[in-house]
Amino acid sequence: MTPDNGEPTGRVTPAPGSAAPQARTSTGSRPTQGTRLDSWIGSYADRTHGMRASEIRALFAVANRPEVVSLAGGMPNLAGLPMDAIAETTHRLLATRGTTALQYGSGQGDERLREQVLEVMRLEGIEAHPDDVVITTGSQQALDLVTRLFINPGDVVVAEAPSYVGALGVFRAYEADVVHVPLDEHGLVPEALDETLTRLAAAGRRVKFLYTVPNFHNPAGVTLSLERRPRVLEIAQRHGVLVVEDNPYGLLGFSGEPLPAMRSLDEDGIVYLGSFSKTFAPGYRVGWAVAPHAVREKLVLASESAILCPSNASQLAISSYLENHDWRNQVKAFREMYRERRDAMIGALGEHMPEASWTVPDGGFYTWVRLPDGLDAQAMLPRAITALVAYVSGTAFYADGQGSDHMRLSFCYPTPERIREGVRRLAGVVEAERELVEIFGTAAGREARIVEPPGPDLA
Amino acid sequence: MTPDNGEPTGRVTPAPGSAAPQARTSTGSRPTQGTRLDSWIGSYADRTHGMRASEIRALFAVANRPEVVSLAGGMPNLAGLPMDAIAETTHRLLATRGTTALQYGSGQGDERLREQVLEVMRLEGIEAHPDDVVITTGSQQALDLVTRLFINPGDVVVAEAPSYVGALGVFRAYEADVVHVPLDEHGLVPEALDETLTRLAAAGRRVKFLYTVPNFHNPAGVTLSLERRPRVLEIAQRHGVLVVEDNPYGLLGFSGEPLPAMRSLDEDGIVYLGSFSKTFAPGYRVGWAVAPHAVREKLVLASESAILCPSNASQLAISSYLENHDWRNQVKAFREMYRERRDAMIGALGEHMPEASWTVPDGGFYTWVRLPDGLDAQAMLPRAITALVAYVSGTAFYADGQGSDHMRLSFCYPTPERIREGVRRLAGVVEAERELVEIFGTAAGREARIVEPPGPDLA
Repeated sequence: MTPDNGEPTGRVTPAPGSAAPQARTSTGSRPTQGTRLDSWIGSYADRTHGMRASEIRALFAVANRPEVVSLAGGMPNLAGLPMDAIAETTHRLLATRGTTALQYGSGQGDERLREQVLEVMRLEGIEAHPDDVVITTGSQQALDLVTRLFINPGDVVVAEAPSYVGALGVFRAYEADVVHVPLDEHGLVPEALDETLTRLAAAGRRVKFLYTVPNFHNPAGVTLSLERRPRVLEIAQRHGVLVVEDNPYGLLGFSGEPLPAMRSLDEDGIVYLGSFSKTFAPGYRVGWAVAPHAVREKLVLASESAILCPSNASQLAISSYLENHDWRNQVKAFREMYRERRDAMIGALGEHMPEASWTVPDGGFYTWVRLPDGLDAQAMLPRAITALVAYVSGTAFYADGQGSDHMRLSFCYPTPERIREGVRRLAGVVEAERELVEIFGTAAGREARIVEPPGPDLA
Repeated sequence: MTPDNGEPTGRVTPAPGSAAPQARTSTGSRPTQGTRLDSWIGSYADRTHGMRASEIRALFAVANRPEVVSLAGGMPNLAGLPMDAIAETTHRLLATRGTTALQYGSGQGDERLREQVLEVMRLEGIEAHPDDVVITTGSQQALDLVTRLFINPGDVVVAEAPSYVGALGVFRAYEADVVHVPLDEHGLVPEALDETLTRLAAAGRRVKFLYTVPNFHNPAGVTLSLERRPRVLEIAQRHGVLVVEDNPYGLLGFSGEPLPAMRSLDEDGIVYLGSFSKTFAPGYRVGWAVAPHAVREKLVLASESAILCPSNASQLAISSYLENHDWRNQVKAFREMYRERRDAMIGALGEHMPEASWTVPDGGFYTWVRLPDGLDAQAMLPRAITALVAYVSGTAFYADGQGSDHMRLSFCYPTPERIREGVRRLAGVVEAERELVEIFGTAAGREARIVEPPGPDLA
């Protein structure tokens, strides 16, 4: 949509009343000039050289075309929200408390909203105090701030294999080394975690935290079992490693009550991240962190430095929504909608793609599909897009190049019918790939692979 | 308001169904336990050790009491906004485009809003393309991202003396060394800039950018003259130094047309930062950066890593406001309101505090007051608070401990009458200090100074 081809734009325009336009033409000591090249290529910080567009981002440009069934994105489906009622509530908020909603607020976040966050978290067994909560610009910002507080370049973050692509981007931005620990159908494998931490300690590596998504994992779709939760905590504690529990999907389980959060088992060893993006709406960008006292203080300072304060307009809108609407029932409606979509996807996979295998998520947005032997999810993607279906290659979810044998399919946004149609199309692509594998031994390498876009042209 | 005294809270609660509560009691290798102490003190990144609460932040707790006339804060006065009409517009937005407003958006920001930003910037002679604009969570986030892109620990940022306290906090967070360059009544002194950059180059220091607030400077209240603008640019260009032009107040001038922005004179050497916080409302947290093509691409990547995307709800609300309201006339009304307050403050200073000197700002929110000889703004602050008036000590605006002979007075928020009362109270405090100086030679040191709060108890 936005041209982004680096063409010269010729938009240098003399300013009205400019006394000395020579400033525009002098080249001085700048390495290069003109808009095609990067004049500042020699000036970037070390961390900037590792920046690159995520695979998912590069994919969005094509996957968002209406004729493509996108099983790629993680956008919640907002069609079920009572939009007129929300509009009414927001109207009243602005008309009665407008000068507060539109003003700067506290760096830690609105006190009433922090109390309401406690009500939300209580559903997962978390007991905390409003002072323990820091409101952030989505839980992504909380993750950025936690990483900022703890990571020196070269420090290790331990994360599940696979792991949330947006977290891997943050860890890379702070020049952390990510070490993956396997998960299985019951989530992160405690024995593997213990071994990994022992091995890293023996190698003299500094592990700063374990990053984990215990519920309805993105992308793996699995949930850390109740039995493993205290074991994971005990292992992290024994190794002196903080646990960052990222829990955007915890209330979106398809059966029974929400599992108790790890934060309900431990207070001092966990930074818990929560979000309204999946249970209400992401457009407000409101998430939160719950952290031990001293860490929480530093999170507030770091957030003030980064954004001064979170949006009062967003916070008060969410606070009003929680106050005036039956949000628990809305979450229940979301659960039922997503369960129906999960069923559509799992059913279609069973029907059309029997040679693959997949996780059956008990909540959340994603299933993690293992392709038949010899297929490469990254190499297959252009053929899938040509067949008007999109997914995310498993390689996006590893810091170390693994994952080409997997793809992430999301069932959150399209209708059940579109999901079934998308899986049908995908099955056709997979089948064609399998035939090629049978004939040539491999399906990969026949054409240019979509690897990560070349990204910033840095030396 | 929020207790923050580090007392043990005893809120560890067993989780329902917890299988192995021993995770809560095992101490393992963590250095310390309990909520009074920081278990993670040995885990923080190097940058975290430099984090501390700003002087302004520590002050807010007392200055916000209603009986205190606060000449300390930088909150815009929103009383003049047509709140009912804004509520109507927002209602319509949510009722008709709710699923867009409440959904994730683009990392770069809403395209329509980026076009509207161009209309705003055209008032200051800036010609750009919507692709050049990145929407951020307030311009504070833009500043954080620019610093993130360019600063390695130990790199130099050159900034005016004094400089915006929030910028100094960001530079410290990325472990930059700030080198100050003097300003006078016409803004940054070009000759001093040239000398400083020459000296730093000779010393082998890596200067990454010049941070400058050319219009109605915070805190100094001065404006970079038209004649100096191209000279500053030429000097920066000659030394290969990027210019970060921070311009939140540019449209809030009290006489004549807005000056052309430095960005109107140069395209490739400047990252321009703008904001709706002062011309509309800070509660949405919407600002922007305009950057050369390659830098802009990296800003988007950095912002996606930090927050995924800016709030669609906020962006679309502002976009609707700009579309449906006479925002130019609203800015004019703000200008007139702030001019009246400026006049009240300058008049009161002339009447009550003739031994001090001050800048007479031609726009913006602040005047910069030099105290009579021998007085110390930081030491005087507790006495001022006792006399029910607050300001910010000049020391907040330097990275190097200067500034105790100055204070920043803001005239943006209180009514003219309250401003006059505040200056009267302050004059009484200054007069009492002067008498002490005459008797004892100094007024400082008689009692505990309010220095920066002790902050995180880091080794």
